[in-house]
Amino acid sequence: MASTDEAAKKEKKLYHTKATGAALATVKKHSKDDSLKLYGSCFCPFVQRVWISLELKQIPYQYIEVDPYEKPESLLKINPRGLIPALKHGDWGCYESTVLMEYLEDLGQGISLLGTDPKTKANCRLWSDHINRSIIPNFYKYIQAQEADKQAEAAVEFKNQIMKLVDAADATGPFFLGKDISFVDVQFAPWILRLNRVLKPYRGWPDPEPGTRWANWVEAIEGNEFVKATTSTDELYLDSYERYAENRPNTSQVANAINEGRGLP
Amino acid sequence: MASTDEAAKKEKKLYHTKATGAALATVKKHSKDDSLKLYGSCFCPFVQRVWISLELKQIPYQYIEVDPYEKPESLLKINPRGLIPALKHGDWGCYESTVLMEYLEDLGQGISLLGTDPKTKANCRLWSDHINRSIIPNFYKYIQAQEADKQAEAAVEFKNQIMKLVDAADATGPFFLGKDISFVDVQFAPWILRLNRVLKPYRGWPDPEPGTRWANWVEAIEGNEFVKATTSTDELYLDSYERYAENRPNTSQVANAINEGRGLP
Repeated sequence: MASTDEAAKKEKKLYHTKATGAALATVKKHSKDDSLKLYGSCFCPFVQRVWISLELKQIPYQYIEVDPYEKPESLLKINPRGLIPALKHGDWGCYESTVLMEYLEDLGQGISLLGTDPKTKANCRLWSDHINRSIIPNFYKYIQAQEADKQAEAAVEFKNQIMKLVDAADATGPFFLGKDISFVDVQFAPWILRLNRVLKPYRGWPDPEPGTRWANWVEAIEGNEFVKATTSTDELYLDSYERYAENRPNTSQVANAINEGRGLP
Repeated sequence: MASTDEAAKKEKKLYHTKATGAALATVKKHSKDDSLKLYGSCFCPFVQRVWISLELKQIPYQYIEVDPYEKPESLLKINPRGLIPALKHGDWGCYESTVLMEYLEDLGQGISLLGTDPKTKANCRLWSDHINRSIIPNFYKYIQAQEADKQAEAAVEFKNQIMKLVDAADATGPFFLGKDISFVDVQFAPWILRLNRVLKPYRGWPDPEPGTRWANWVEAIEGNEFVKATTSTDELYLDSYERYAENRPNTSQVANAINEGRGLP
């Protein structure tokens, strides 16, 4: 059967439909019915933003794993397009990760990620907008690029946009505003985690130079207990992003938008 | 000299660098030095969002007209890219129209545009995001499209995205949340004003069917005294958008992004 095993090894990797490692333990802790429900998929970075926020704030919630290619009726009731993440709170539902992070903030439970100073809040929202419009689209352009020259070009642009954010961060850090994790860090954290787990194996993304402000930021994100609680084992990300790295047709609405030169869905 | 006059008439129309009509009167009222300064251009819809917010809230401010193609040093200090709108408040500055609207909200002066209910706020942010990512880019695709078939295609998509917003609005209205103007209305108002003043003359955009929810919304925006206070005479918009309608090279960073299939700057 050796040849069959070899053939199986060469089969395409599929996205996972169940969290692993620390994230699985968190899913199990939050499997009981609750009036606040997070619909998510274990590999999705947009979901992880909301998930980290819930963990940081220690707000009670129920985690509901969704296969984004087989959307449950209860999710389609919140949003007919079935986009995740989605939150259901009592009879009410909403979606879009940044909107949901603001919602959790407005509930006023647990630690605050935006604080109360209007200028600091504006600064956090300005750089969250930079992450959403200038960093994240370049992450997907980079991982989906197939030709070496396109990959090199995308890598430069992706790095430049990250460096603008690093330059705007508190000089000492390690987080965006200083010693504590806050809104901008949570917005960016899921993609920081995917540098080492996805862009490094598939695109040769380099480790940060030790001792730099950027290295300290990455280390702080990787070491945060609430980030860790929503993170699966490395294999889950490696498997789930192979379809992006090979730019397979209809990988996701995000992947399609990038391929068609549109804004993210 | 008749022939010279004829030639002059056929010259390209240029964007205006000074407000007219009611907007000019407002500029004059807000010409004195103030610790809160709005850097804007009289024809720019992104600026008008922040300007309407200031007027609605009756917060004291100084309006500083900026020629976006000759940016003053004081603006470049707030943002090296010199994007408008920008606000300077004391020593601090920020930009991005949606971020600035949230900032004015967080100051807690005057009427609130988002209210205090977390679910309503989330709903407003969700539909503001729809305006920013699905309505506005289609406005520019439509006005910049040169071929009849591309214009027809863009018109359909633009209308569909507006109708999604209308369907999400309060059933009675006339505004998004009901009888009072609020965040989503101000986000959308500048483009509503440009339907009749720009898309109608250049693209044949139809008047709303009388008595419809959409017609009532447009009428309510057109009739709001604070919207009116930031609106110039029709000619200013007709002139300022000719370069978009002819898709002249380097019309603006927004126009370039649309032409290159990128997200808005």
